[in-house]
Amino acid sequence: MSAPRTTVTTQVGIVGGGPAGLMLSHLLAKAGIDNIVVEKRDHETIRTTHRAGILEHGSVKLLNDSGVNGRVLSEGHRHDGIDLRFGGRSHRIDFQDLVGESVWLYPQNEVFVDLAAARERDSGDVRYSVRDTEVLDVTTATPKIRFTEADGTEVEIRCRILVGADGSQSICRRAIPADVRSDHFIEYPFAWFGILTEAPPSAPELIYARSEHGFALISQRSETVQRMYFQCDPAEDASAWTEERIWDELQRRVEGPDGLELKRGRIFEQMVLPFRSYVCEPLRHGNLFLAGDAGHTVPPTGAKGLNLALADVGLLFHALDSFFSAGSSTLLDAYSETALRRVWKAQNFSYWMTSMLHTRSDATPFERKRSLGELAAVTGSRYGQQYLAEGYTGWPDN
Amino acid sequence: MSAPRTTVTTQVGIVGGGPAGLMLSHLLAKAGIDNIVVEKRDHETIRTTHRAGILEHGSVKLLNDSGVNGRVLSEGHRHDGIDLRFGGRSHRIDFQDLVGESVWLYPQNEVFVDLAAARERDSGDVRYSVRDTEVLDVTTATPKIRFTEADGTEVEIRCRILVGADGSQSICRRAIPADVRSDHFIEYPFAWFGILTEAPPSAPELIYARSEHGFALISQRSETVQRMYFQCDPAEDASAWTEERIWDELQRRVEGPDGLELKRGRIFEQMVLPFRSYVCEPLRHGNLFLAGDAGHTVPPTGAKGLNLALADVGLLFHALDSFFSAGSSTLLDAYSETALRRVWKAQNFSYWMTSMLHTRSDATPFERKRSLGELAAVTGSRYGQQYLAEGYTGWPDN
Repeated sequence: MSAPRTTVTTQVGIVGGGPAGLMLSHLLAKAGIDNIVVEKRDHETIRTTHRAGILEHGSVKLLNDSGVNGRVLSEGHRHDGIDLRFGGRSHRIDFQDLVGESVWLYPQNEVFVDLAAARERDSGDVRYSVRDTEVLDVTTATPKIRFTEADGTEVEIRCRILVGADGSQSICRRAIPADVRSDHFIEYPFAWFGILTEAPPSAPELIYARSEHGFALISQRSETVQRMYFQCDPAEDASAWTEERIWDELQRRVEGPDGLELKRGRIFEQMVLPFRSYVCEPLRHGNLFLAGDAGHTVPPTGAKGLNLALADVGLLFHALDSFFSAGSSTLLDAYSETALRRVWKAQNFSYWMTSMLHTRSDATPFERKRSLGELAAVTGSRYGQQYLAEGYTGWPDN
Repeated sequence: MSAPRTTVTTQVGIVGGGPAGLMLSHLLAKAGIDNIVVEKRDHETIRTTHRAGILEHGSVKLLNDSGVNGRVLSEGHRHDGIDLRFGGRSHRIDFQDLVGESVWLYPQNEVFVDLAAARERDSGDVRYSVRDTEVLDVTTATPKIRFTEADGTEVEIRCRILVGADGSQSICRRAIPADVRSDHFIEYPFAWFGILTEAPPSAPELIYARSEHGFALISQRSETVQRMYFQCDPAEDASAWTEERIWDELQRRVEGPDGLELKRGRIFEQMVLPFRSYVCEPLRHGNLFLAGDAGHTVPPTGAKGLNLALADVGLLFHALDSFFSAGSSTLLDAYSETALRRVWKAQNFSYWMTSMLHTRSDATPFERKRSLGELAAVTGSRYGQQYLAEGYTGWPDN
C-alpha cells in the first residue's frame, strides 16, 4: 500500500534545477511569483559536471542585474577576442574593437553554484534528488508535476504554468504529443575529444584552429586548469589514448610558422563529446513551456548552449511576469516563436563555425579550399569579422 | 600539300576574344605592349550570346578608367541594392547605405561590343573565326599559338607571354600537364531554368527569392526585356515548358503577403543552365597564364563570373606591364596565388549565396529551417548585411 501523496500548490512548477531552471526560479521569486523547482540529480553531481564555459555579455548582464552575486565579474575572465587559426597562422577577432562587447570565461558549474546559493539564501523551494518525475494535465489550467522525494515522500505540485528546463533528455518535452511537435535534428560526422589538464594557459584567449589534421580548440578554465578539444571520430574510444598521444595530436593541429607551443600537464579528464543539433517546435504546449536544452541543443563550437538557455529564461520570465502581474498572455503566446528566432540563428551560427573549422573525412579538395577561402574572406573583411563577433558575443535581440 | 605557315611575332599572345581577352588586349595596347588576340567564334556569335549582367564597381571602374567608353554608365543601370526574399517577404540589402558602393546592370555582350569597338578603333589585332588553335612551347621563352584563319591561312604567333582567356572549355588550360595541375570542382544537385521575356520590369532591383518551391531570381535587362530564373532539376527539358507553366512557376516562388505580381510577357529564350564550380590550380605554367573562365567558373548566383575575369585581367595587366616595362617578374610570379585568393573568396561567396537561397531536394526540415535562420541572421544584422553587400559589390582587394 503506497503512502499518501502530499499536494502542494504554486504558480510556476519548474522541472530541472540546472542553470536555466534555477535562473528562472530566482527571477520569478524576485518578482514575487511563487515557484518550486524539482531536480533529479543531487546538488554535488551538478556542481561537479563540467560543461560549457563561455558567457555572452547578455548572460553576464542577466546574472548581475538580477542580483545573483558578482562572482562572474570578480572570478570570471573577460575575453575581448578569439583567435581563428588556419594555414598555421592566428587571426585575432577583436570583439571590443569590432562590436564593443566581450564574453566571459566562467564555467557553467560555477553559474550553477551561484544560482543554487542565491536560491538557498532567498529560501527558494528547490528539491534535488527527486525520482520518478512525471508531468500531467499540461493543457489544463492546473498542470501537475508528480515525483518522489529523496526520503520517499510522494508529492504532487499543482501549478498554473509548468516549465520544462530539464535538459536534453527532457521528460517535459515528451508531454508534447508527437502530432503537434516537430523534432528537427542533425548529427555531425565527427565528435570532440575533450580533456581537462593541470597546466598553465597556452594562450590568453580561445584558439579555434583548422588544420589539415582537423579542428582543435585551445581554451582555458583557470590559471592552473585548461580545457582543450580536438575533432575526432564519433566512435573514438577516449580511454585508449595515452597522454602523450593526446598532446601530440593537439600540438600538430596548431603547428605553424608562428610556433605556438602548447603547455602540457597531467590530463585528469578525457572524454568524447557527441556533436548534434536539435530543435523542438513549438516550445509550448498548453501551459507547458520548454526552456534551454529541453527545447534545443547545439554543438559546442559556438558556445551557445548555456547562453541560449539563459536567453530563453529571460524571455520566459518577462512573459510570466506579464501574465501573473498584469494578467496579459500576449508575451506567453509569443514566447515559442520569439525564442525560436534566436535558437535558429544560434543553430546556424554553430553550424557555420563548425563547418568552417572542421574537416569532414569525405570532404573533396574543392570543399577544403572553399572553407579556407571562407576563413580568408571572414578574417580579411572587417564586416565579416563583425558579423562573426556579433554572433559570438551574442545578438542584441532575437 | 598544305600552304606555308605565316609567322608573326608579338609580346603577348592571347587566346580568347571574349571580354577577358579583349580587356587585356586593350590595356596592354594602351601601355604600348604589342599583342594579338585569336578567337574561334565570330564577332556576331559572341555579341548575341546572353550571359551575366551584373558588374561590380571595380569592373565598371576598369572599363571607364581604361577609356573603353562611357556606355556602361550612360546605358547601364546603377543598382544600389538587391532584395533577399524569404518567408514571402522582401528584405532589401542597401549597398550604398551599407558599404557605399553599387553594382551596374550591363549585360556581358554589351561589354564585349564596347571592347571589340575599342580594339577596332585602336587598330588592335583581333582575329575572329580562327580554327584548329593549339598552343605550344609554353614553358620556353617563345610560346606559340598555331591556328588557321577564316580564309584558310595557317598562322603561327610567336610571343613572349601567352595568355589563355579562352573560357571554360579552354584549350590553353590543357597545356598545363595533369601532374602539375589540380582541378577542383563541384556539381550542384540543381540547375537554373532561365528565360528572356519581352515585358516591363517586375521590380526595380534584383530579387533573390527562397521559397518552399525553390529559388527564383527576378532580374532585369532593359525597360522592355527581362531576365528571370528558377531553380530546377539539371535534367529538366526546357523546351517542354509552356509559357504559362513557366510564369506560374516563377510567380509561386515570389508569392507573399506583400503581393509581388510578376509582369508577364512573351518568352523568347528558355534554357537550362548547369550549376558548377571549378578552379584550376595554379593559373600559370611557364609563360602561360590563365585568366577568367579558362581558370575558374562559378555558379551564377553571386554574379561573379565576368567580374572575376576582369579582376584577373587587371592583375595580369599590371604584372605584364611591370614585366615588359620594368623587367620585373615579381608580379607575374605572384599572379596565380594573388588571383586565386579572390577566386576562392568568390567561390565561397557563390556557394554561400547558393546554399542559403536554394532548396536541395534531399534537405531535411532541420536544414531548411537553418537556412531560413541564416537568412534571418544576415538580414537582421547590419554587420551581416554589410558582409554580404561587400561580397556582392566586390571586395576592395584580393
